[in-house]
Amino acid sequence: NRIRATMSGPPSPVAEFPYLPQSHRDLMLDLRSAVEARLGPHLLPSAVPPDVLSFHSPSGASHGALDIRSGGRDSPVDFILESWLHCELPTGALNITTLFAFLDAATDAPHLLMEFIQSSPSSLILFTDLLPRKDLVLHPDYLDEFYQQTNLDKPRQELAKLPQVQPYCSSSLYIRSVLSPTAIAVCINCGEDGQSMMEDIMRGQLDAICKEIVRIWLDTCASSSKQLGETERADLRRRDGLIKNKTIEIDLAANLPRMFSPEVANRVVGEIQKAFKI
Amino acid sequence: NRIRATMSGPPSPVAEFPYLPQSHRDLMLDLRSAVEARLGPHLLPSAVPPDVLSFHSPSGASHGALDIRSGGRDSPVDFILESWLHCELPTGALNITTLFAFLDAATDAPHLLMEFIQSSPSSLILFTDLLPRKDLVLHPDYLDEFYQQTNLDKPRQELAKLPQVQPYCSSSLYIRSVLSPTAIAVCINCGEDGQSMMEDIMRGQLDAICKEIVRIWLDTCASSSKQLGETERADLRRRDGLIKNKTIEIDLAANLPRMFSPEVANRVVGEIQKAFKI
Repeated sequence: NRIRATMSGPPSPVAEFPYLPQSHRDLMLDLRSAVEARLGPHLLPSAVPPDVLSFHSPSGASHGALDIRSGGRDSPVDFILESWLHCELPTGALNITTLFAFLDAATDAPHLLMEFIQSSPSSLILFTDLLPRKDLVLHPDYLDEFYQQTNLDKPRQELAKLPQVQPYCSSSLYIRSVLSPTAIAVCINCGEDGQSMMEDIMRGQLDAICKEIVRIWLDTCASSSKQLGETERADLRRRDGLIKNKTIEIDLAANLPRMFSPEVANRVVGEIQKAFKI
Repeated sequence: NRIRATMSGPPSPVAEFPYLPQSHRDLMLDLRSAVEARLGPHLLPSAVPPDVLSFHSPSGASHGALDIRSGGRDSPVDFILESWLHCELPTGALNITTLFAFLDAATDAPHLLMEFIQSSPSSLILFTDLLPRKDLVLHPDYLDEFYQQTNLDKPRQELAKLPQVQPYCSSSLYIRSVLSPTAIAVCINCGEDGQSMMEDIMRGQLDAICKEIVRIWLDTCASSSKQLGETERADLRRRDGLIKNKTIEIDLAANLPRMFSPEVANRVVGEIQKAFKI
């Protein structure tokens, strides 16, 4: 089946997406396949324990799955984190799916972030970006190489044209600072009874745009390596470390305990911190 | 009169704003007064020659005024640049008014940018921001000090609530990179016959928001000084230099020649480069 075909090991619970609408699940599986096809052979097997690969809240109202694979010695990949979270709320189901691919200091090429926050079948928040590893104001050449030459602003512009799309501003100024000028941070709202319109947008524009961004990242970033000096590597590690720490502090540590209980959240966050090496 | 009362020398043509709607002119004069009242005694007299203080295109279709004052020895102000440009286009009048206040390496506090681009009496693009002097990802404390603690996101959020307000994205990725996460970059469009609504917004929300931002900058940035090491000062100078160079390249050098002829544009840009020390 679709899942098995793309996995080099046994299928991970993170590849099941049991609560997503079909169009969304198809997109997630295609994105996984694309990443796996290119990077799979260069990734180490998952070392995530079963109670983090799949977990739920004590009440059973929230379910989640998380997998992390580190890059091998021949790969500039630091780790690839995939997760989905599902939570039954009084207002409906909340589904958060995340693909986060971090590179190490063998290159200064951007990281990949893609997150879908679906709080109803007819609305969705999408965050996706190639996260800069450097201060773009000081490094216009870097901006040119990874953002201008790759035409990364085009998918953003195309999505912004849809009448259902509104900009979405993270409440965290730090998260906003981490994003590149071509970041997609939008809320897509198809209104009540907009479920089939949302499915159409997912199969149409979102499918095309997300695949294009992953393609750009795979082509331009994920296999790049540069001759960097030791100072430059140290600077990259320091900046990456801050992004990792802050993301956990702002995003996960704030939300997971509420959804899954502090005990489950600690277990999951602990595993992420291990992969993040912080 | 209003202009004379706020000036320490003879009134500069830049303070006349002869082509602006009354509400807009009033706001610009009030902003000038606020800056002048606080910083005036610490600024040197203008050294801008008369043919740049006031200029026009060979055909007479475009008029402009520019004034620059440098900070004195006791001031962290590098320079304050004020300008207005007016151009009669087949589609209507274009008015661009700019207030740009740059600090020097005596502090790392943000610069002030405020620019109004009015292409019709019922629509306006507003750019305003405190421009960060540092990579915010690497310096969360800086983000906290100047953006979080000052509650700078509040005016942005308030403006975004107006139905006439849409986000405006500069076509330059570099300009987008220079902005802070609380930058206001919006297009305000009041539709055909929306001139009086635009005047109301100008006297109401825009007046309040722009004054609040200038107040925050004056209180928190314009009189700050820090004990910075020589390396840190050199880093600030390098980053500021890039912002200055790129702003001229992207904004002025691209637009002024078209509006004013290459000769006039060269004269004006040359004077700005002198003030920018580049």
